[in-house]
Amino acid sequence: MSKSVFYHAGCPVCVGAEQDIINLIGTDSVEIVHFGEDMSRFDEARNAGVKSVPALVTPNGTVLHINFGASMTDIKG
Amino acid sequence: MSKSVFYHAGCPVCVGAEQDIINLIGTDSVEIVHFGEDMSRFDEARNAGVKSVPALVTPNGTVLHINFGASMTDIKG
Repeated sequence: MSKSVFYHAGCPVCVGAEQDIINLIGTDSVEIVHFGEDMSRFDEARNAGVKSVPALVTPNGTVLHINFGASMTDIKG
Repeated sequence: MSKSVFYHAGCPVCVGAEQDIINLIGTDSVEIVHFGEDMSRFDEARNAGVKSVPALVTPNGTVLHINFGASMTDIKG
């Protein structure tokens, strides 16, 4: 697995960070997951250690919480 | 200006995030500033909007606070 995964929930902080991350690491290197469009990925993110969004999970599994938009419990209690 | 600047203070969270950022965006695309070695860059970071470290300031001036190591006021009140 060589792609990072960027999880977000459509909040303004999320959308801004999404564009920054795409600019920084390139659109081909990151998969974007928007919980507002695909909640089926929620558990995967939580299991990876995502506590809040926006967050980037790197290819080696590290979770980078970037700024703060919403906590995972706000999205799904 | 096409380089991002990664500010940190040598804390464990900082050092881990530094390696992740270098892996993601490439060592040539990011300047690393360690306040423990160069406090002369502190005001520049604070003026850019850095509230805590580690933080990445992108070429367009956006501040991405990545995880949380220490607040800027902890480093210099």
